[in-house]
Amino acid sequence: MTFATAAPPLERLKAILAELADLQHAESIADWDSRVSMPPEGAAARADVVATLTRVMHERFVSDEVGELLGALEGLDDPTDAALVRLTRREWERARRVPGELAAEMSHSAGIAVAAWDKAKAASDFASFVPHLERQLELKQRYIACFPETETPYDVLLDEYEEGMTTAEVQKVFTRLKEELVPLIERRQPAPELTGPFPVEAQQRANRLVLEAFGYDPAAWRIDETPHPFASKPGFADIRLTTHTDARDLTSLFSTMHEFGHGVYEFDIDPSLARSPLAQGTSSALHESQSRMWENLVGRSRGFWRWFYPKLQPLFPDALGTVDEESFLQAVSAIRPGFIRGDADEATYGLHIILRFELEQELLAGTVEIRDLPEIWNSRMNDYLGVDVPDDAHGVLQDMHWSIGLLGYFPTYQLGNVISVQLWERARADLGDLEEQFARGEFGQLREWLRDHVYRHGSIYPPRELLQRITGSQLDPEPYLEYLRTKFA
Amino acid sequence: MTFATAAPPLERLKAILAELADLQHAESIADWDSRVSMPPEGAAARADVVATLTRVMHERFVSDEVGELLGALEGLDDPTDAALVRLTRREWERARRVPGELAAEMSHSAGIAVAAWDKAKAASDFASFVPHLERQLELKQRYIACFPETETPYDVLLDEYEEGMTTAEVQKVFTRLKEELVPLIERRQPAPELTGPFPVEAQQRANRLVLEAFGYDPAAWRIDETPHPFASKPGFADIRLTTHTDARDLTSLFSTMHEFGHGVYEFDIDPSLARSPLAQGTSSALHESQSRMWENLVGRSRGFWRWFYPKLQPLFPDALGTVDEESFLQAVSAIRPGFIRGDADEATYGLHIILRFELEQELLAGTVEIRDLPEIWNSRMNDYLGVDVPDDAHGVLQDMHWSIGLLGYFPTYQLGNVISVQLWERARADLGDLEEQFARGEFGQLREWLRDHVYRHGSIYPPRELLQRITGSQLDPEPYLEYLRTKFA
Repeated sequence: MTFATAAPPLERLKAILAELADLQHAESIADWDSRVSMPPEGAAARADVVATLTRVMHERFVSDEVGELLGALEGLDDPTDAALVRLTRREWERARRVPGELAAEMSHSAGIAVAAWDKAKAASDFASFVPHLERQLELKQRYIACFPETETPYDVLLDEYEEGMTTAEVQKVFTRLKEELVPLIERRQPAPELTGPFPVEAQQRANRLVLEAFGYDPAAWRIDETPHPFASKPGFADIRLTTHTDARDLTSLFSTMHEFGHGVYEFDIDPSLARSPLAQGTSSALHESQSRMWENLVGRSRGFWRWFYPKLQPLFPDALGTVDEESFLQAVSAIRPGFIRGDADEATYGLHIILRFELEQELLAGTVEIRDLPEIWNSRMNDYLGVDVPDDAHGVLQDMHWSIGLLGYFPTYQLGNVISVQLWERARADLGDLEEQFARGEFGQLREWLRDHVYRHGSIYPPRELLQRITGSQLDPEPYLEYLRTKFA
Repeated sequence: MTFATAAPPLERLKAILAELADLQHAESIADWDSRVSMPPEGAAARADVVATLTRVMHERFVSDEVGELLGALEGLDDPTDAALVRLTRREWERARRVPGELAAEMSHSAGIAVAAWDKAKAASDFASFVPHLERQLELKQRYIACFPETETPYDVLLDEYEEGMTTAEVQKVFTRLKEELVPLIERRQPAPELTGPFPVEAQQRANRLVLEAFGYDPAAWRIDETPHPFASKPGFADIRLTTHTDARDLTSLFSTMHEFGHGVYEFDIDPSLARSPLAQGTSSALHESQSRMWENLVGRSRGFWRWFYPKLQPLFPDALGTVDEESFLQAVSAIRPGFIRGDADEATYGLHIILRFELEQELLAGTVEIRDLPEIWNSRMNDYLGVDVPDDAHGVLQDMHWSIGLLGYFPTYQLGNVISVQLWERARADLGDLEEQFARGEFGQLREWLRDHVYRHGSIYPPRELLQRITGSQLDPEPYLEYLRTKFA
């Protein structure tokens, strides 16, 4: 385009990145639609759409032109522009390593594998999923091979979701957690159990009440039902949450608060960053720190329930009529080892992640065979949490992540838990007693603090730098462990 | 891509066209989402997404490479491949005329104008829509100027939706229709009127019953509520209908059958044509002939209601309990001049279209000013149909078409009515008494006939050729007029 060639390099780079952001949004719309709206027979055509968008984005991004523009834009004064160039260079160098055909294959086969996973999980039929998982692993190996200078293959994957994170560092944090979590779980106290049913419509009303108190605005947000909850942003000022409401329990309420945390991080990014790679949360762990903060540090706090239990109880007169606030709080906070990561409490959650972190490294190293996964999974679940997995739907097939090639992603969930408490301690130091505000149904001060310190910056600061700026320290499991010890003393 | 360059020309062309079909699907997903799911504040980002997809498609399509491949693929033996090359050449030559920036501007401004139209219509505020309509008209003039050899500017627009159609030919058909329709409407008999309310849930049940009898399969189709009904195909084997259910009347039932006609045309295209420009209905008028056939020739037939009235009546005991089948049939078929095109009966519909056909030509010629549109609209509505338009929401603002730059499109609706009866006469000659089948709730033979003669071919035959192959004649208003005369005798 003539006008682009004549424009200064920064403008040209921004125009290319804006176009890529639009295509990324198109992919996100297609993805959201495939999980919320699409009739099942549309899956094959949809896989083509996503693969083509991925390839087009890849081709445009890895062009020499982008490299030349980056070269011409070293040492910019404006810190936001400098951050844009830094992040773009990091992604461009990564993307240059990966052939377009491999990127398209990964995307295309993920579309097919996730549909296969869906069926396999419904039938608890691991065997039918094996060829798809083999394919995902093979593609992941080819992807890792594009980064031959990285000594630890798993580091390639970690760094993609969590800039600068290493397997060794995760290992160190997880070892420390395991040391404390296993005895903490063993020492758990018996807790009251809630028995439903919790009618779905009343749960949806409860979800809306909480979301609106947190600052959900239907002009820019929506929430739908899907089997697996997620949050996405198919455009700036367009935030989509999903939840899975099941009359047997109140999981949906907590998962809704979880997805709100992801949504609000994206929603509160400074609008001046829109249509650029800076307009997204800075890393998976930082993102997860926000979903966990809203789900657990807010949503399982005493103050929150002081406000919300009087609203929730009348929605479920049969199930909660005779349950007092204290018993309810104990019931929803209790340590209860189970099979399902997504339903896990704050203490056992980490062990679910540690299991996956170990297995992913073993799969990559070839020390575990895919066909042996169910057996190893079930045996370790017994070792770590003392539970007997009843079938693969409640075991190795429970998560979609591997079907879409997300390896190296799980650890960021647990790092998010760790970071959430580091940030929480800082917010409390600045804002005073948050629980008192929550007890009045007020969440605005916390949200503003988070917007100011975390959300608005998008990806301007790499995760380490952001954490250091806010807390004055690096990744540190001790505040999180202290929080758990206090809570479950 | 290396592999593409090495492949034979036909394969290379097909690979490019498949990629473009995927991007077209991405645009269609984004469009469907914006009308069904998107929170309102997502509109600005969505306009960027659509503009970028349009520009990317345009750039890829108008490349010299496509031109060279087309040049290397003259005179293919395989008739489907030859049709692909013919259609691609027609579209490529058209697209080469239009600068990418103009195409993107048209797309981007349409996204903004349609939101403005939405608000303007809700407030019946034409003045707020004027600048957007001016912009659309200006862009349309620039578009027409890309085809300087076409003597009649309106021909440029018509030919886009209806290959080979000319203003003169439409004028001739419409003059003949006007001659007959005006006296036919004047001679109308009084007819019973239905009075609601018709509860929305019962209407949605009725819609599903009819759709399922017609062959709607939830594995590949869905139906949603939108203010303005439409059908779209965001992927092969992925058909989306929408309807607008209003408790005051049964319009939704007929508009659902209408959109089914569009959907089934797309759904029944031969799967071997997927991911190519042949995988779509061959023209707007042919498409409309199918929506009109299912809405009117099937859905307002005596046989259809012999089957369906006993199912519909119990869904609305209050409104229909004392209405017999014959009165109902008269009520839903009656000639009733009104303001709204979308609600118009089979006889008055044509005059709504003729009004728009005239105004569009006058706007392009500059003989009508945009600011004078409401006055002229209302005055002609009175001349043609004897009705007094109460406000612009029920007048010039009723249709979205102009807001998205659709000029030259309205005539195809009425040509569709004309063609629908031409095809219907042929189907009846082949299949015998369709009404008897409908009275048993059987629509399969008609659908199979249509699939075989019309749908499966997609765009292999241009509209004139398809009509000639099936009916042995060209566009002819007489069967349609004869049908109306018989029905309203």
